[in-house]
Amino acid sequence: MARDEEPLLARRDTEASMGQAEEDALLTGEPVHRGPRRGWGFWRQIGVFAWAVVATLAVIVVGVAYQKQLADKNTTQKPTGKRNLIFMVSDGMGPTSLSLTRSYMQYAQDKPFNKQLVLDKHMIGQSRTRSSSSLVTDSAAGATAFSCGKKSYNGAISVLDDHSPCGTVLEAAHKAGYLTGLVVTTRLTDATPATFAAHVNARDQEDEIARQMIGVSHPLGRVVDLMLGGGRCFFLPKGTAGACRSDNEDVVATAKKMGWSYASTRKDFDALKGGKSVKLPMLGLFATEDIPYEIDRRNESDIYPSLDEMARTALTALSEATKDSEQGFFLMIEGSRIDHAGHANDPSAQVHEVLAYDKAFSSVLDFLEKDSTPGVMVATSDHETGGLATARQLRPTYPDYLWYPDALANATSSCERLTRRYYEYREAHPEIKNLTDYVAESLRKGLGIYDATPAELEILVNNPDYAPYGYADMISRRSQTGWSTHGHSAADVNIYSSCSHTAKALQGNHENTEVGAFLREYLDLDVDAITKQLRGHSVLKPSWMGPLPAEGVRLDGQSHVEKYHGNFKY
Amino acid sequence: MARDEEPLLARRDTEASMGQAEEDALLTGEPVHRGPRRGWGFWRQIGVFAWAVVATLAVIVVGVAYQKQLADKNTTQKPTGKRNLIFMVSDGMGPTSLSLTRSYMQYAQDKPFNKQLVLDKHMIGQSRTRSSSSLVTDSAAGATAFSCGKKSYNGAISVLDDHSPCGTVLEAAHKAGYLTGLVVTTRLTDATPATFAAHVNARDQEDEIARQMIGVSHPLGRVVDLMLGGGRCFFLPKGTAGACRSDNEDVVATAKKMGWSYASTRKDFDALKGGKSVKLPMLGLFATEDIPYEIDRRNESDIYPSLDEMARTALTALSEATKDSEQGFFLMIEGSRIDHAGHANDPSAQVHEVLAYDKAFSSVLDFLEKDSTPGVMVATSDHETGGLATARQLRPTYPDYLWYPDALANATSSCERLTRRYYEYREAHPEIKNLTDYVAESLRKGLGIYDATPAELEILVNNPDYAPYGYADMISRRSQTGWSTHGHSAADVNIYSSCSHTAKALQGNHENTEVGAFLREYLDLDVDAITKQLRGHSVLKPSWMGPLPAEGVRLDGQSHVEKYHGNFKY
Repeated sequence: MARDEEPLLARRDTEASMGQAEEDALLTGEPVHRGPRRGWGFWRQIGVFAWAVVATLAVIVVGVAYQKQLADKNTTQKPTGKRNLIFMVSDGMGPTSLSLTRSYMQYAQDKPFNKQLVLDKHMIGQSRTRSSSSLVTDSAAGATAFSCGKKSYNGAISVLDDHSPCGTVLEAAHKAGYLTGLVVTTRLTDATPATFAAHVNARDQEDEIARQMIGVSHPLGRVVDLMLGGGRCFFLPKGTAGACRSDNEDVVATAKKMGWSYASTRKDFDALKGGKSVKLPMLGLFATEDIPYEIDRRNESDIYPSLDEMARTALTALSEATKDSEQGFFLMIEGSRIDHAGHANDPSAQVHEVLAYDKAFSSVLDFLEKDSTPGVMVATSDHETGGLATARQLRPTYPDYLWYPDALANATSSCERLTRRYYEYREAHPEIKNLTDYVAESLRKGLGIYDATPAELEILVNNPDYAPYGYADMISRRSQTGWSTHGHSAADVNIYSSCSHTAKALQGNHENTEVGAFLREYLDLDVDAITKQLRGHSVLKPSWMGPLPAEGVRLDGQSHVEKYHGNFKY
Repeated sequence: MARDEEPLLARRDTEASMGQAEEDALLTGEPVHRGPRRGWGFWRQIGVFAWAVVATLAVIVVGVAYQKQLADKNTTQKPTGKRNLIFMVSDGMGPTSLSLTRSYMQYAQDKPFNKQLVLDKHMIGQSRTRSSSSLVTDSAAGATAFSCGKKSYNGAISVLDDHSPCGTVLEAAHKAGYLTGLVVTTRLTDATPATFAAHVNARDQEDEIARQMIGVSHPLGRVVDLMLGGGRCFFLPKGTAGACRSDNEDVVATAKKMGWSYASTRKDFDALKGGKSVKLPMLGLFATEDIPYEIDRRNESDIYPSLDEMARTALTALSEATKDSEQGFFLMIEGSRIDHAGHANDPSAQVHEVLAYDKAFSSVLDFLEKDSTPGVMVATSDHETGGLATARQLRPTYPDYLWYPDALANATSSCERLTRRYYEYREAHPEIKNLTDYVAESLRKGLGIYDATPAELEILVNNPDYAPYGYADMISRRSQTGWSTHGHSAADVNIYSSCSHTAKALQGNHENTEVGAFLREYLDLDVDAITKQLRGHSVLKPSWMGPLPAEGVRLDGQSHVEKYHGNFKY
């Protein structure tokens, strides 16, 4: 045994004691070996001691990790340290928009039946969308639920039922040192982006919204660092080319004076070098009003940037600008015109809008995966638009179980654009009394419809006002896509996230205000402090507006309806 | 110090060594105290050794727990030991049925806006529903995706595209020693229950389905232990009261001969004592065809048991019967007629169907919480029915954002029943030439509609065939509920579970066949072995049936449609 061969020079005080020998016996099960022993005892005691210390440390380390795992499993950890938050909104995209677009994508790209959208792989729950004034929200109340985390009435831009302004997640993020951005395909003064950086009583006050968003009339000054989208006309003074303001204020000039850099063309956009050459604050207004539908824009990419291009530019710009900061950024990206395609009941425009949103969604995932700063993306819709159904009964007889995404693949144009072209042609050619040939050709070239019936042609020719509905109805019928309204519906909408674990609080079915709560909680922001700061600042109120927006009661004998649709107690 | 006061009688061989003293110094940081020491050293060494051993064991225990946590976090653990599986199907319930029913419930029960259905609290994902023959599935192909975990054509009852039978989760569970049960509110021979225990080429072969379900013509013999629902007429010989078989076979008599106990009345049901007095196998057929809609049944609870009553009876019966077994049970519970209310476009019938399903869902949760055997419940729909929208535009002018669940609260009857009463009255009173008064009264009493227009009354009176659609359309218009079809749609449907952790594999967006895969995997069943066993057994094929069900192509100029809607490669 090695212990017998230990050096004779071992010090006396290190020789094995009887206790040590007995301990050996305990360990080895061998009889106690009595006799002179040197050195081993000491080292063994040190060894056992070290073993005990190491094992104890290991218990602590593993125990702490275990506790953390348990905690992670049961609750979302409050995030700490520098982080980025990206919030994506698919305006008007209900659950059925996904099956519509997915089946279209599978058909158009010749993919198997189980090929998913990128969105599909990140679905985590659903949101309930009602506003304080109706079961069917509008985008203003819907986005106020996200920005302020509070229910309000239809039309409210981050003001509550009593018309007092409520602090928004973007404002609180700005105050906490985060950089902030808004990217949309509609007007930047439209309801969804407006609720993050403006407070007005009615969403159509876009003149005022433009002023607040650049900070000139916002009670807190400038709160946004980067805005990319459409709606240039609300920033230009009345009377100038492409302006739609009702006053003479040149908001672009004011913004420049305040230090905003400004971009308004594709050339300007390209000069941003994908976000690497952005001087903040930056205002990018790339369309007079809305940026065209993706189905049309893809043929005009020399004029308009895509949602994905703007989203990637914003991510790069904000990421670069916060590189050396203690705080990261908050960025809202909206696929704004999914909603418009729903309002228009135009399924071929919608599938391209959803695919464009899916692409931007994918780019955000890529960014988060590669970026060294931790971050999360949460995405949802404010409401469903159109009462969309991937089925439509065309005859009184019982319908076959079929739906035709392939009919959408023949469309090359939105019905909005087809209608505009039709009206332009009609105005340019007053000498042509019968436009049947033109309309038939527009159907063939624009929607791939070769089987228009005489009755269908007749209504388009004789009732040009009906054209937007007529075109949309023809492609909807041929794909057997159903719609119940040109307005919104009360359907629950899906919630998505880059990380189901971080966004655990949003798994399952939630009120839309809980999405707002998640946003402020992820960035650990005090939105209420902003609300207090805003208190006393009067909110511009149009003269026509009563104490609550008037929502008509439409059916006799249903007088209790008003009570139900009236304001509820929060 | 205590060590200096140690007994003088301490044995020599236990006195402290110099090493021990030095070790003390290491521990305490105090200088080594030299001099005679007794006893302490030995016990301290034992102590340190014990400490090391305990700490090491703790590392192992905590480490194993930590590993398990990590594993749990990343993958669902394969379950082991005795367990129960409850699978719930909400036939035809799309995502919008939830917002419809929730808002109705909030209104009718005077609950706040954020009061959820029980279902809402357990939503975990969505299922894609297409069949192999169409983007729009029927219930047969939809349920075959659950029972066999395979895509098949519309109309297939657990047979594949080549008409060969596929083994089902219920059959495999039976073979593995589980007890099995089916609870429905439709006919037990209807598509959903049929796919679990029968194999036929076309869902309308209900005569044969009845025989297979009791085991008399099933290739594997009897595989079901408990069946509760409607559809008695398919078990009774042609010509007898309440029969709808096309042959003279008395399937009830055959079942009794095979050992089935039989119940067919409310009295019989009550004698089951909530499942405590059930003698398995048990066949309960409580309605000639479907059990009435809940909106009607609640006034006839002395005739028909509710879905919840049948579900609780089945849970108790199967739980009692497996009390001393090594294996638990597999139970399928279907809210069958949500689908029928969708087909009828009857929103007031539908909300009561969904609430009845929600109640049964809640009872299953209660059962699982209290039962000592582990188990899980997974719930989903086979498809959406009706293209339901909680919004409906009634006029060409842009719609207000409103939807009226309160209009549904005035209804006391399904439109199906109203229509039947109308037809009965008309037949009983041929002397009454103008039924306007009767129809107006039926609208007031049945649907709470006091504002029927002369045109609405006229169409119901002059076109009695239109009555089911007319009644449903009137209540749909008043509630502003939209429908796109009387058939099914391709919308994704929600997935629910009693435990999001156990059913982790079904979180997010999934193909319906993945639901089937979860069922067999949770019970660790070899469904393929059943498929092999079934091979060679010819499946009854109706003479009219071609190699694939004929799905018409309906639009000229869309010839590529057939290719898309044809069979895809699995």
